[in-house]
Amino acid sequence: MSDNTFHAYAAMNSGEALVPYQFDAGELQAHQVEVKVEYCGLCHSDISIIQNDWKSSVYPVVPGHEVIGTITQLGSEAKGLKIGQRVGIGWTAESCQHCDPCIDGRQVQCTGTKTATIVGHAGGFADKVRAGWQWVIPLPDDLDPTSAGPLLCGGITVFDPILQHQIQAIHHVAVIGIGGLGHMAIKLLKAWGCEITAFSSNLDKTDELKAMGADHVVNSRDLAAIKAQRGKFNLILSTVNVTLDWQAYLSTLAPNGSVHMLGLALEPMQIPAGMLISGAKSVTGSSTGSPAALRELLRFAARQNIAPQIEMYPMSQVNEAIERLHSGNVRYRIVLKADF
Amino acid sequence: MSDNTFHAYAAMNSGEALVPYQFDAGELQAHQVEVKVEYCGLCHSDISIIQNDWKSSVYPVVPGHEVIGTITQLGSEAKGLKIGQRVGIGWTAESCQHCDPCIDGRQVQCTGTKTATIVGHAGGFADKVRAGWQWVIPLPDDLDPTSAGPLLCGGITVFDPILQHQIQAIHHVAVIGIGGLGHMAIKLLKAWGCEITAFSSNLDKTDELKAMGADHVVNSRDLAAIKAQRGKFNLILSTVNVTLDWQAYLSTLAPNGSVHMLGLALEPMQIPAGMLISGAKSVTGSSTGSPAALRELLRFAARQNIAPQIEMYPMSQVNEAIERLHSGNVRYRIVLKADF
Repeated sequence: MSDNTFHAYAAMNSGEALVPYQFDAGELQAHQVEVKVEYCGLCHSDISIIQNDWKSSVYPVVPGHEVIGTITQLGSEAKGLKIGQRVGIGWTAESCQHCDPCIDGRQVQCTGTKTATIVGHAGGFADKVRAGWQWVIPLPDDLDPTSAGPLLCGGITVFDPILQHQIQAIHHVAVIGIGGLGHMAIKLLKAWGCEITAFSSNLDKTDELKAMGADHVVNSRDLAAIKAQRGKFNLILSTVNVTLDWQAYLSTLAPNGSVHMLGLALEPMQIPAGMLISGAKSVTGSSTGSPAALRELLRFAARQNIAPQIEMYPMSQVNEAIERLHSGNVRYRIVLKADF
Repeated sequence: MSDNTFHAYAAMNSGEALVPYQFDAGELQAHQVEVKVEYCGLCHSDISIIQNDWKSSVYPVVPGHEVIGTITQLGSEAKGLKIGQRVGIGWTAESCQHCDPCIDGRQVQCTGTKTATIVGHAGGFADKVRAGWQWVIPLPDDLDPTSAGPLLCGGITVFDPILQHQIQAIHHVAVIGIGGLGHMAIKLLKAWGCEITAFSSNLDKTDELKAMGADHVVNSRDLAAIKAQRGKFNLILSTVNVTLDWQAYLSTLAPNGSVHMLGLALEPMQIPAGMLISGAKSVTGSSTGSPAALRELLRFAARQNIAPQIEMYPMSQVNEAIERLHSGNVRYRIVLKADF
């Protein structure tokens, strides 16, 4: 007999502190996998869901979508996984498996029933979490489980556009905003062989960013410094959710270059068509990534020894961890260690 | 002894009617080719240069950049061409040949000295025109020279993004604005095997557009009709230079789809980052195309029997032709026949 009682931390209402929360998850469905949580990253999206910023939250909210753990139960349809195996779960918990994008390996674009790990579904700030088997990603043996969690959401978010834009080692890539996502982007691009420019509002980080692999660090609030980068970048990954001078950043693109949006800036971008037409430039965007890309990312991180730089908190101190995240001083991602 | 006296039609000042204009072109340079003009298309960009809309005009302006003619003189460095050969010349007359994009076959993105055929250079509303040999494109024997001119600018402008976006016959492509560019886009996409939706503000054209190959014709000014196309298009080619409801058009893109800007809408587009992030959509742009793409286009048009639909005027009636273009009733491109 399996134990369907989950112990978690939940926001009972919009914006409230998390409290211990126990619930009955019901029987595991045939396509699902149950994972005992060991570690779970804390992402800004968890805060957005706690606060109902996107008007999609379903309370009680159990946040947490950068899960590392081991498989405790397998549904009868689950394929390629085994009990006890160490795995990761990211932003998406379920997709329909039968729409065109799903059948094409683009499950992240599922047009059927798709469930985020923390929207109407209990996330990873818990002793156990469940997901559809396709979204349960095997962890390579040589990837450190204590810090791997953030790869499952923040990491894939910056990794997927590197694949989509067919970035190669000859390219010069800029990253705007060096927090959880941005610092992983620098580490991935360093291993990719690229020239890297980091745009940060905090030049105190300069030495750290260069140690991670940035070739150049530029003040993201210094318009003259931005404009001095004219014509340089094949790709700019923007991880921030504030409104910047997008026209200034467009001017820093090389021919055929792209500004790629990952952060949900709320005001519409002001994009003159002429700046796209001249030099065949583009503004692109994406969210996370599909299971195949997640598997590639974990294998690549293991082979290249890429680990997010983290601060560890016991999960029972989740509210202190959230406060720390709000301070803006985290270097560079928080991971919670399950201590139920 | 060659005759360096050219007879042309020129605007002597901003916005003026064209007048007969004779000038000494000087000796042909080593890298140049001289072409006796037979036909020359009339493009909206000619009007923009006559009117100095882009603040780059150099008067007197000899417009005309969709030239078909035969080679009368070859500079000593000109390669792969011969006297008497029938050729075409488009928007670009010269590029530096040695910058990175030039050496990479992306001459349209030349970062060195690049000259447009009608900016500080005498264009095709003349008995003769000159261009750098790389930009003088051989005309296939089986392509009708009377109507081929518009392929050299309007045609390549819609052809290049079909190549760049790697469009295939399984894709659904929309075209906004069915004038000179748009009608060529429909004909090219028809031969490409695509499903085609034409957005036009003039539904009187519906039967004509379907005869050209459009599968669907939608009123570009009917917001509800646009929104009903939700999630359909892999690519939208926008050929208009007016401000549209870009967010409505973005909502009609399929996952990974792009709105591709070809028309110089003057107001910045209002693009919410969230509409790019969700479904990995993009806003892209381009101008014309490089010599290799021009050669491919002419070969493709010849093989597939694709001809712009034109109205012919003698070049001596260029001002009447310009008036006709302003009327907005041209079906779908004007070509001038040299009658010096």
